[in-house]
Order: sequence, then C-alpha cells, then structure tokens
Amino acid sequence: MATGRLSTGRLSIVGLGPGDASLLTDQARQALQRADRLYGYQPYLDRLQLAEGQQAFPSDNRVEAERAREALTAACEGHQVVMVSGGDPGVFAMASAVCEQIEAGPDAFKQLDVDIVPGISAMLAAAAACGAPLGNDFCVISLSNNLKPWELIEHRLRMAARAGFAMAFYNPVSKARPWQLGQAFDVLGEELAGDIPVIFSRAISRPDQQIRVSTLAEAQAEWADMSTLIIIGTEYTRIIAREERSPLIYTPRRIPQ
Amino acid sequence: MATGRLSTGRLSIVGLGPGDASLLTDQARQALQRADRLYGYQPYLDRLQLAEGQQAFPSDNRVEAERAREALTAACEGHQVVMVSGGDPGVFAMASAVCEQIEAGPDAFKQLDVDIVPGISAMLAAAAACGAPLGNDFCVISLSNNLKPWELIEHRLRMAARAGFAMAFYNPVSKARPWQLGQAFDVLGEELAGDIPVIFSRAISRPDQQIRVSTLAEAQAEWADMSTLIIIGTEYTRIIAREERSPLIYTPRRIPQ
Repeated sequence: MATGRLSTGRLSIVGLGPGDASLLTDQARQALQRADRLYGYQPYLDRLQLAEGQQAFPSDNRVEAERAREALTAACEGHQVVMVSGGDPGVFAMASAVCEQIEAGPDAFKQLDVDIVPGISAMLAAAAACGAPLGNDFCVISLSNNLKPWELIEHRLRMAARAGFAMAFYNPVSKARPWQLGQAFDVLGEELAGDIPVIFSRAISRPDQQIRVSTLAEAQAEWADMSTLIIIGTEYTRIIAREERSPLIYTPRRIPQ
Repeated sequence: MATGRLSTGRLSIVGLGPGDASLLTDQARQALQRADRLYGYQPYLDRLQLAEGQQAFPSDNRVEAERAREALTAACEGHQVVMVSGGDPGVFAMASAVCEQIEAGPDAFKQLDVDIVPGISAMLAAAAACGAPLGNDFCVISLSNNLKPWELIEHRLRMAARAGFAMAFYNPVSKARPWQLGQAFDVLGEELAGDIPVIFSRAISRPDQQIRVSTLAEAQAEWADMSTLIIIGTEYTRIIAREERSPLIYTPRRIPQ
C-alpha cells in the first residue's frame, strides 16, 4: 500500500453468501483480508476467522442504523472497514441501511470510498438446491412489516399473483411476527390454484440444510423459521420425480400463447 | 477418486457470475476443475483457461435445448460434465433449460447426478455497482418475447408497477428484438411517475463496464444493448449526489404508512 494512502479509510459492504464458505467469492475474501475492522450481525461475523490485527464489532440484528453509522465513522477515521452481510448486501440487507446513513449523515460520509461486493443471495442458493423454480419472471418480497405497512405487503402479493410471478419470500416469520406467513398463504390462496408448488428452504448450504416441498393448499406457516426462505412457484412450475433422488423443481422459460 | 466411481458421470450447472473472475465462488471453481467436458455459450467458455484433459464444447446462444441434451448425454456416458452459465444458472439461464431436457428425455437423464452451483447474477452485480436500488421488494423480468407472448410481458410490467416493485430487466434488446425495451418504457410511463430512476448497467464487472443513470421520462431504449441490465427504481428510490464520485442510488427499506 502506498504511504500516502495509509490514512485513507474505506468501507466495503461484503456479501458472505448463504453460509457455506465455498460460496464466498474471491472479491469478498480479498475485501475481508484487507479490513482492520469488521462490523455486522454477530452470527455472520462468527463465520469468519480473523487474522491478527483485525477487530470484530458484532451487533444485534435490530440495530442496522447504529451499526452503519459506527462503521462509516470508523472509515472516516482512516480504518479499512468491512460491513458483512448474509447473502447479498443489496437484497434486504446492509447496503441500503448504509446508504441511508450516508444520505442522512455528515458530508464526510459522502466523501468516503464505499464499495459493495455482491454475494450469493439466499434465493439463488435455495433455487439452485432444488432445480430452477425462479427460471422465469419472479419477484422478491420481504414479509416483515417492521418497516412497511402490512397492507402494502398484501397488495404486492396480490399483484405478484396476478402477474404470474414466481416469488421468493425473505423474513417469513420471527418470534415477534408469527402470523405474517400464514396470512400471505391465505392471500395467495384467494388468487392462485391450490396445487402451486411451495418450497421451504431452511439453512441452505449449511450443515442443517432442509428442503420441504408442498403446495399452496397444504403449506403450513409453522414449517418456517427465521432461517427459511420460501419460494412460490407458478402455474407452469414442474416437479420432476426421480428415483432415490430429491425431485427437481423448475419453472420453464417457455410460456405458451 | 475411488475406482468404483470412475464410470459415474455427473452434470454440474455452474454460474460464472457477471464476468470478472474475482466474482466466481470457490464452489464454481472446484466444479470447473473437476470437469473433463465443458459445455456452454461460446463467450462464457472463452472466459475459462482449460487444463490438460479438459475439452470445451462451445455453442451458439439460440441452441440451449440441444446443448443441454448433449451435456446430459455426455454425463450419462460417464463424463464429468460442466454446463457453464453467465451470472446465475437459475435466472434466465441454463438450469431451467437442462431441467426441461431431463423431464423430456430418457430415464437415464433422471438417474444422473445433477447439481447446480449458484453464481452472482447480473442484477446483483449491477445493483452493487451503484448502491442498493433493489434494497426493497423487487421483480425480475426477461423482456424477450421469444419464449412468451409480448402481451404477458406488458401485463407483468403493469402489475409490477402497481405493486411498487423495483424492477430488473434481462434481455432488454437484441438485433432481432429492437422495439421491446422502448415499448416497456412506454407501458411503465402510463403507470409510473416520469422521475423514477432508470439505471442502464452495461458489461458490469468487465473492463468496458458502463453505468448510465436516467429517469423513466428521459430513458432511451437505444442506450441498451445485449450486455445491458436495466434497473427501474420506485417512487421511494433515492439518489445521493457525491463530489468527484458517482452517485449512490438506493431504495430504502422503510416505506411510510
């Protein structure tokens, strides 16, 4: 590193992917190696082995704004900062939270070197684990109504159903949000056929990975937890049964006239 | 490799990411190293440096079904086969095409070891390059009407606009499809405000990367080519101007009541 750059801080927002270290990109690994301070939700930081001279600043999962401000402030002080994100930082994760704080914060935040290193998002990993259920047009919805009105989520579900989109749901349930996924299934049940495939993908790429395939009529919200990503198929989605192998589920690229 | 497995073929469908080799995952790299035959669209295969004993079978971009059948047949013959895909194989790419051929093909195709290695899709890389425009609910639409009716695409655009989704468009234009993107802008113009941000992301992560930021009212379809991914923001999407730096564009997680 050139001497003149030693005091120049930087913030990299890095996607760690769904869990398995082999799903990290080289770019993410390089950004992690460069950092002297790493910020993020504790379970994501716990995945990393820190080198000497690297310091972790773990935080809880409800304090994204504070975490983002602390990381930006450290970068302004000259640190090489990484903010880690599960999956991809741009999909219901830290990139938007950091941008919010850059916009609201002091001018120094806007003068910083900030870069975002994409990651394998949970929806891509979950789809790959069972075939290609997102192989045609699809949408991605967070079912958390912590930051947006539930009525808007219901409206979006109805529009998505009428569009014929496959769907990926992030944040389907939590202890504080027990009813949202069941309500989402009910709304979709009013719009779509009961035999549309529903895939519960839990802890994808991690040792306790579980995939459960059901239908809109049969799916039970209690099968999901905070680590579950839900995929809703379309009327065209196909399930290929295979002997001694889990089925392949895919949405064809072709839609007839 | 155990002797008893030598004759057991396998097909891995591998996402190469948007272009830059540093956006490959370790899992993708390992799958590529294992292969003795590699199939795919010529420009994707051209990105790879093959080792001794590896053979490439490049094909044109309109022959996905034939390519998938050839790769499956080679795996049935005992080869370690990789099918490469740009971006992520599950997003308008080869995973769905291979599944189609497995379903339509002989029983032997259904008895094969098939796995899908996810990749950084163009939409994630394009979003990361400019901020977090897909930071709230969004949808992903291929504008190609080669395999689905244009009327369905227009319907999906209208539903997506009414849902308030950000949007990522794949396959916006080609020589054979010159008018679709302009028509999509017109449809969205009937549904959405003219000042909604539109991002043209061309050749993301490659040496000739270009990002152009416009609005729905000003955007010109001729700014796009086959290598362009289009992102449409929402009424909440923010643009943070920065001195001597490109603007940061993000869609906030919070949507007021």
